[in-house]
Amino acid sequence: MITMRPEKLDELVDFLTNGDRRAAAKLITAVENGWKSAKEVIKRIYPHTGRAYVVGITGPPGTGKSTLLDKLIVLARREGKRVGVIAVDPTSPFTGGALLGDRIRMQRHSTDPNVFIRSMATRGSLGGVSRATNDAVKILDAWGADYIFIETVGVGQIEVDIIKTADTVVLVTVPGLGDDIQAIKAGLMEIADIFTINKSDREGAEMTYLEIKMALQFESERWKKLGWEPPIVQTTGFTLKGVHSLWDAIKRHQEYMLKSGRIEERRIRRVKEEMRDIVVERVDEKLMKLFKSDSFGDLIERVVKRQIDPYSAADEILKTFNLGGV
Amino acid sequence: MITMRPEKLDELVDFLTNGDRRAAAKLITAVENGWKSAKEVIKRIYPHTGRAYVVGITGPPGTGKSTLLDKLIVLARREGKRVGVIAVDPTSPFTGGALLGDRIRMQRHSTDPNVFIRSMATRGSLGGVSRATNDAVKILDAWGADYIFIETVGVGQIEVDIIKTADTVVLVTVPGLGDDIQAIKAGLMEIADIFTINKSDREGAEMTYLEIKMALQFESERWKKLGWEPPIVQTTGFTLKGVHSLWDAIKRHQEYMLKSGRIEERRIRRVKEEMRDIVVERVDEKLMKLFKSDSFGDLIERVVKRQIDPYSAADEILKTFNLGGV
Repeated sequence: MITMRPEKLDELVDFLTNGDRRAAAKLITAVENGWKSAKEVIKRIYPHTGRAYVVGITGPPGTGKSTLLDKLIVLARREGKRVGVIAVDPTSPFTGGALLGDRIRMQRHSTDPNVFIRSMATRGSLGGVSRATNDAVKILDAWGADYIFIETVGVGQIEVDIIKTADTVVLVTVPGLGDDIQAIKAGLMEIADIFTINKSDREGAEMTYLEIKMALQFESERWKKLGWEPPIVQTTGFTLKGVHSLWDAIKRHQEYMLKSGRIEERRIRRVKEEMRDIVVERVDEKLMKLFKSDSFGDLIERVVKRQIDPYSAADEILKTFNLGGV
Repeated sequence: MITMRPEKLDELVDFLTNGDRRAAAKLITAVENGWKSAKEVIKRIYPHTGRAYVVGITGPPGTGKSTLLDKLIVLARREGKRVGVIAVDPTSPFTGGALLGDRIRMQRHSTDPNVFIRSMATRGSLGGVSRATNDAVKILDAWGADYIFIETVGVGQIEVDIIKTADTVVLVTVPGLGDDIQAIKAGLMEIADIFTINKSDREGAEMTYLEIKMALQFESERWKKLGWEPPIVQTTGFTLKGVHSLWDAIKRHQEYMLKSGRIEERRIRRVKEEMRDIVVERVDEKLMKLFKSDSFGDLIERVVKRQIDPYSAADEILKTFNLGGV
């Protein structure tokens, strides 16, 4: 845990709200260090938030999300927008490394004082990862970002939970993923506001387009009711061609969200998710501490010896949490 | 939720402990349906567990884990062992589909009454996924499995939490992952008991071997203290060559775990993780219910309007959980 003198924290928050990038970096490190320091930071900056528009970019590994994002930054900057990027890396060292490699490209923006890019790892206690990501969003909001992009591979419950609270969710796919398209219908369909077929110069792009189109048609009633049907944008990450259409689609969705008032619904959902993350992280942390201190040593031994089953043992713990009747 | 008459559940448990595969399948479905039905199932079968040896197989997508596993089943069956397999799929529909495809190969064992294979999706509330996986392990244990293999990609906190409680953890990698090897040192090194370089006929296999070897040497003190240094096995998934060495390594590690008594430590850790999952799932579920019923509607509105920050709001909720002082 970072120990920070209150006056120093107030100073950092002052710098932050004046657009200082180093203050943003330091404060994000503080929220990553645990909920205790995060609480102090967020309490102070929360009144300064609520202005930024949050765009989630998700999709399987290797679909070129970082390259697309790099181009989106260019387009947003041309319009004079201030941009924050939070790249959420999966815990695994395996893919972690590869993703970081892709992101080197984005670093060319690091000399631009109106761009802030940060990688965060999905590590730590349950709830902690999404909690820290949400807090980083608030920090970049208070820093003055017009757009905050959250990038993550769409694998794992934690990543999906993070991305679904964005104001606009962009799902990036590539031709030739085969079977997977079947599954899109069932799963991420629920959370995507915009579909992007990247590497659309590849063979099979037309097929991928038709498959998504057909899947969308199954839910046509839903789109009518919403007043928004997810567009399918075709891009190739290496040129600006197509990325313009994606950026336009994002801005059209933003306009729709603001005009329809649906942004309010989504922000209520985000607040609920945030509070869920905070509560779960703290319960989880409390448990870990209790286990370490051997407060439940006897109970655990009885479970190991099969004198009591794990559910009945968990009931004992939940009772001490005033949650016996859950 | 499945509604099951108690007498019917007792009947299923009877069938299960007599080695009936259909009973195992039905009971796993019951534990997947939520903790309430899981509790009833596990209470009954827990006394029948504790005999099976649990092997975790993890690694990045595309390393051929399913193909290796398919061969390991063959070798275990030759020794007359009864085998259970739980393949944990990431939530993402994208990779989910691909993984399922790989697993079709394994289905050739489905006519063997001494092999049970089941896919489980990482969906649901926090804690719920690992909880259901752990419960499935217990069911296959009570069914009479000698070995239970849990297969999962090593991406995401939930997957790592699941795999690290196995009695033996096998990490599968392939040549040519580049940067990633750097990261192995930092991360999964902690949880791997055996390293496997699959597709070892590929270029770069020797290099991958040396890199892991060197990384292991950095921790030589630790291995001395443990009395076990993780071996590095080279395999090619398409032949039985190498898979024999992997199977031998697993059995050697099993012997080491049993003789050294270290299996006890790991099972205590597993019990702790299990109880953590149960508690977190129930707290999470309770929260979701409270949010749905609008019990905290006012509080959430105040957060949305920025009259109170999420941490202070979470404190209010934690107080009702008797956890104000956490």
